[in-house]
Amino acid sequence: MTEQTRPLDVVILAAGQGTRMKSSLPKVLHPVAGRPMVAWAVKTARDLGARNVVVVTGHGAEQVEAALGEADVIFARQAQQLGTGHAFIQGLDALSDHQADVLVLYGDTPLLRADTLTALLSDHRARGGAFTVLTGEVPDATGYGRIIRDAQGNVERIVEQKDATPQERDVREFNSGVYLMDARARELSARITNDNASGEYYLTDLLGLYRAEGAEVHAFKLTDPSEVMGANDRTGLAEAEGIIRARLTHEHMRAGVTIHLPETVYIEDTVQLGRDVTLEPGVILRGQTRVAEGATIGAYSVITDSTLHEGVTVKPHSVLEGAEVGAGSDVGPFARLRPGTVLAGGVHIGNFVETKNARLAQGVKAGHLAYLGDVEIGEETNVGAGTIVANFDGVNKHRSTVGAGVFIGSNSTLIAPRVVGDAAFIAAGSAVHEDVPEGAMAVARGKQRTLEGWSKRYWGGLRGKVQEKLPWLAGWLDRQD
Amino acid sequence: MTEQTRPLDVVILAAGQGTRMKSSLPKVLHPVAGRPMVAWAVKTARDLGARNVVVVTGHGAEQVEAALGEADVIFARQAQQLGTGHAFIQGLDALSDHQADVLVLYGDTPLLRADTLTALLSDHRARGGAFTVLTGEVPDATGYGRIIRDAQGNVERIVEQKDATPQERDVREFNSGVYLMDARARELSARITNDNASGEYYLTDLLGLYRAEGAEVHAFKLTDPSEVMGANDRTGLAEAEGIIRARLTHEHMRAGVTIHLPETVYIEDTVQLGRDVTLEPGVILRGQTRVAEGATIGAYSVITDSTLHEGVTVKPHSVLEGAEVGAGSDVGPFARLRPGTVLAGGVHIGNFVETKNARLAQGVKAGHLAYLGDVEIGEETNVGAGTIVANFDGVNKHRSTVGAGVFIGSNSTLIAPRVVGDAAFIAAGSAVHEDVPEGAMAVARGKQRTLEGWSKRYWGGLRGKVQEKLPWLAGWLDRQD
Amino acid sequence: MTEQTRPLDVVILAAGQGTRMKSSLPKVLHPVAGRPMVAWAVKTARDLGARNVVVVTGHGAEQVEAALGEADVIFARQAQQLGTGHAFIQGLDALSDHQADVLVLYGDTPLLRADTLTALLSDHRARGGAFTVLTGEVPDATGYGRIIRDAQGNVERIVEQKDATPQERDVREFNSGVYLMDARARELSARITNDNASGEYYLTDLLGLYRAEGAEVHAFKLTDPSEVMGANDRTGLAEAEGIIRARLTHEHMRAGVTIHLPETVYIEDTVQLGRDVTLEPGVILRGQTRVAEGATIGAYSVITDSTLHEGVTVKPHSVLEGAEVGAGSDVGPFARLRPGTVLAGGVHIGNFVETKNARLAQGVKAGHLAYLGDVEIGEETNVGAGTIVANFDGVNKHRSTVGAGVFIGSNSTLIAPRVVGDAAFIAAGSAVHEDVPEGAMAVARGKQRTLEGWSKRYWGGLRGKVQEKLPWLAGWLDRQD
Repeated sequence: MTEQTRPLDVVILAAGQGTRMKSSLPKVLHPVAGRPMVAWAVKTARDLGARNVVVVTGHGAEQVEAALGEADVIFARQAQQLGTGHAFIQGLDALSDHQADVLVLYGDTPLLRADTLTALLSDHRARGGAFTVLTGEVPDATGYGRIIRDAQGNVERIVEQKDATPQERDVREFNSGVYLMDARARELSARITNDNASGEYYLTDLLGLYRAEGAEVHAFKLTDPSEVMGANDRTGLAEAEGIIRARLTHEHMRAGVTIHLPETVYIEDTVQLGRDVTLEPGVILRGQTRVAEGATIGAYSVITDSTLHEGVTVKPHSVLEGAEVGAGSDVGPFARLRPGTVLAGGVHIGNFVETKNARLAQGVKAGHLAYLGDVEIGEETNVGAGTIVANFDGVNKHRSTVGAGVFIGSNSTLIAPRVVGDAAFIAAGSAVHEDVPEGAMAVARGKQRTLEGWSKRYWGGLRGKVQEKLPWLAGWLDRQD
Repeated sequence: MTEQTRPLDVVILAAGQGTRMKSSLPKVLHPVAGRPMVAWAVKTARDLGARNVVVVTGHGAEQVEAALGEADVIFARQAQQLGTGHAFIQGLDALSDHQADVLVLYGDTPLLRADTLTALLSDHRARGGAFTVLTGEVPDATGYGRIIRDAQGNVERIVEQKDATPQERDVREFNSGVYLMDARARELSARITNDNASGEYYLTDLLGLYRAEGAEVHAFKLTDPSEVMGANDRTGLAEAEGIIRARLTHEHMRAGVTIHLPETVYIEDTVQLGRDVTLEPGVILRGQTRVAEGATIGAYSVITDSTLHEGVTVKPHSVLEGAEVGAGSDVGPFARLRPGTVLAGGVHIGNFVETKNARLAQGVKAGHLAYLGDVEIGEETNVGAGTIVANFDGVNKHRSTVGAGVFIGSNSTLIAPRVVGDAAFIAAGSAVHEDVPEGAMAVARGKQRTLEGWSKRYWGGLRGKVQEKLPWLAGWLDRQD
Repeated sequence: MTEQTRPLDVVILAAGQGTRMKSSLPKVLHPVAGRPMVAWAVKTARDLGARNVVVVTGHGAEQVEAALGEADVIFARQAQQLGTGHAFIQGLDALSDHQADVLVLYGDTPLLRADTLTALLSDHRARGGAFTVLTGEVPDATGYGRIIRDAQGNVERIVEQKDATPQERDVREFNSGVYLMDARARELSARITNDNASGEYYLTDLLGLYRAEGAEVHAFKLTDPSEVMGANDRTGLAEAEGIIRARLTHEHMRAGVTIHLPETVYIEDTVQLGRDVTLEPGVILRGQTRVAEGATIGAYSVITDSTLHEGVTVKPHSVLEGAEVGAGSDVGPFARLRPGTVLAGGVHIGNFVETKNARLAQGVKAGHLAYLGDVEIGEETNVGAGTIVANFDGVNKHRSTVGAGVFIGSNSTLIAPRVVGDAAFIAAGSAVHEDVPEGAMAVARGKQRTLEGWSKRYWGGLRGKVQEKLPWLAGWLDRQD
């Protein structure tokens, strides 16, 4: 097995409690930029091409395992919290063999990039390293373990803050806790003892055990030390999210997306945006959202798991979820497209319109105050303001079909299940409770009766209030006498 | 009277004009984070346990006094603007006795923390001080009065910018203008003269008068000198608000609240948030708002004076005011809950729904495009899309009652005052103008008439326009011939 | 012709491709703060009082010329990209005479202020300069051409990065590329050669040509070197927009506008705001928008080309375009005013209400869920919730007129073209298809029929589902037996 083909196993330590989160949710499940922190570590491991990914769980183990249920990882339970060395061994024991390089990651450092670890891996293998520690350098490393190097620049040992001499405290290179090691990891980690003040098994001790074997220990220094910043409380979560958010908006901008007020825009890393897409302030894009070239997303719109085709315009304050919007369609402002919405090209959805499980063909217009639920609507049909497809009978939802070229008058109700034929016409204000054949007009409203002189009596009876509140009407009443 | 039990009176100077605000509102009434600046000073005084709080007003005195009308403070008018010393004396004269320590605060420094002043008070009393000045240290104190200390480190005098020698100008410790003094304040302040270039009475002179009495004058240095930053124009207001905003979001995050894009979130200090509450970007929380554990507030929602119980979900773009939302209910997106709304548990309010003076029992659903005003609705009732409770007769509002288990069909209108019995059923499109007994069905709509072949004549008459604008219909028309 | 009256011509170089934009739009047409970058340069030239403004186009020339179609500029096409010197000559050749001073600007530096150039112009003329280069000073000018001055401080030459000696590379004064020159520009620029490594004509060479004539060459140093920052990719666009945005919000704040969370507020430079206007977080103001004294714009509202009179309140989440709102009116939340909306004073527009081509007189109220399109409404008329003016017959829009003091009941539909007389009354739920005379009541809905005992049969038939989903109703059904 050559170095290049040697497999890589990743052990993710994710057993910590995270009391500073002050939460009923385990620390590593707190989301950052749309994904639990531990899932960022799993994703990073996958991006590295890991053979096995082991997640060591402890506090809230059931919740963590449930959250990662579909991630194809191996779980190892650390029943007692006996230290990082102990946790690591639990992780290794869950592996079927120990012939791979092993990388240790953490469930609370979502900023660590796969690119950085790929560079670490290359460096490790190029130097034929046995054990490589990922380090960073900061002006003041107080609190961290310091990297003590020998005259040759090899890593001699790591000294913890409390054990450091004044001279060692001046060292600015710190230990990130991320280690990459060769296949001796299982054998050597068994020699870690808890013979120390706190009685814990420290993973750090492994470095000395490798050196005792005569193995070379290297350090690989991070370009950006903030990548190993752990999120320990909600402020840390917000900071990590802010950094990921900024990375993503900058990547999109460099790729040809215009973003107005990028500091206010939130894009998850699962989202894909085409060239010449424009995002206005405050846009939120989540999940499996795809936006094609030339589309514009209006201010404060929130879009989840939706596909927008070329040249779509979403006007401000629209909320889309699980929707597909055809090329050149325009949506909003104040539109709500719910799951199962499929708009063909050139569809117009205006303000205060909701769709759900609705397929609208080319050129359909629903411009105002409508609810289109469980319905199929044909080409060029015009849906009047206030139209409601009454799809619910109290316990079941029913599906309706409206043909092409239909004119639905304002404030109409289609009582599902209903079939309206092509080119039919529905009079405004109708409650349509029978199917309408092709080319027919349906009228289902009361005939108008007009009662002359009625207002004089009505307002006359309320005269006191009218005089107090409605000066124009009071004057009108006076003139009627 | 021991030092610890000696009362504290606070004099707040709030007479200034604030021309740089360019406003018809007196400077100290400009709001910062939801509260007029002067009200922040009053709150701080109360948090310190002040016995009396005197507010010295001048410019816009009536407006300031009206704004603080319910604050239980003593007002002193400074009729002429003769200087800070003169203003202070007006404040002292409004007190019934002069046996307390006196603290001078300002109506335009909303960032000064009660904790800081508590530390000042402790220091002052521990050192048996007669006069303590709150100071700060900055790299360049140009423009401020400088603190000149003697060899023992006691404060000798304060020298103003214009009177300072080059050596004194290098001093980086500045006078905040906040002073704490013993009960001699009234007696000694009477000795302040206006015998100076500008002919004003300067409060700063009091320091020398205390020293002339042989009293020790101390300085208490701020950890964060920005706390005494005054807001003199709207930019200053925005900066102060930004700092208070950041303080509050950080406090909430440390206490277990997840906040996405915290720089875009605005929370007033009167708001209480439980553990594991999640706030999405752009959320605004105001007034007496309480959010219980585990609730989620969606992006861009604006919530004022409302109570949200455990596990409530508010979806994006909702506006709540004076509402109570029961445990596990979900609201929005685009919901508007107005004062008097009380939702029991498990209620669902969907998009484009408005409630006002509405009590909705357990499990009520109003999912789409509805107005529920002045109404009581029983358990499990389903309110169809487009339902309107017509509560207004032109001058009066009327109240309606809807029972439990009622099914209100879409686009119905309940003409108030109306009583709908339990388990009643209202047909879609009905304008209900008579009460509906328990278990009955009400239909109040026109019967459907269907006119075959009507569309051909209608569209035929508009054929030119149809051909121009509606290609599908034009084709259909052609096929009818 | 004295120096003071000597005309100024401006040549704007706007021929570049801007590949880093990754866009189908030419670089100079990318908008910053509501205006294409090249239009900022044109505006700046106009603000300087330029006689002629020449825009030299190249890549995407047709698009650039179309975008500036109404700007009264002269276009010069640079057919081949032979260098800045060549582009400049194309620009000069488009001028009818060469008797003016000439200023060179760029189509991708939107941050350069007219005030700065006015100062440049004054300095140039006061010093009787022949050629003045605008420069800036930064800690590290790597990449820029450096300004090499002689012993007298006059500019000797500009040395490009690649040609600079180590000593010259330490120079921190850089060439912005903006030049102001006297009327010899045409004659001297003809002497620029392409006798250099890249075979291009460099505009920079002009400096040497002026000096060769014995002319004095001066430099005018920018106070803020970021003014000449070019936007080369979308990140640069966002940065430039951020700076302009901050400039504008600060100007408005200094002039007496309160802005909450100013970092989230977006105001175009065409917008005018009165004193004591308040902008809540996330407000977007665009185009020819005018807001008079004392108005408040609620959070996340988006307002374009609209006029708001004194004391107007726009509540959160409102979208206005081409609307006029009279003094003291209140609008929103969730209101949509579209072009042609004219509201008189004291009008109330509530939530989920849309207006378009609508004139509403003093005191009209439309509080909830309405569409008012192509309609005129008289004084004090009350528009009930759910009212829709059905203005569309499938191909044409029709206009309706509603008188003063009218009461339109909820969920009514006015089928246009309709005339409703003063003080008329429309019963809730009516579809009004005939005109209503003054003082009359129109009822156009079905009469109510109430079917006792109906629910028992209906729900009984759905009993399985009812028991599963609607426990209260299941219990009720049980009790009916």
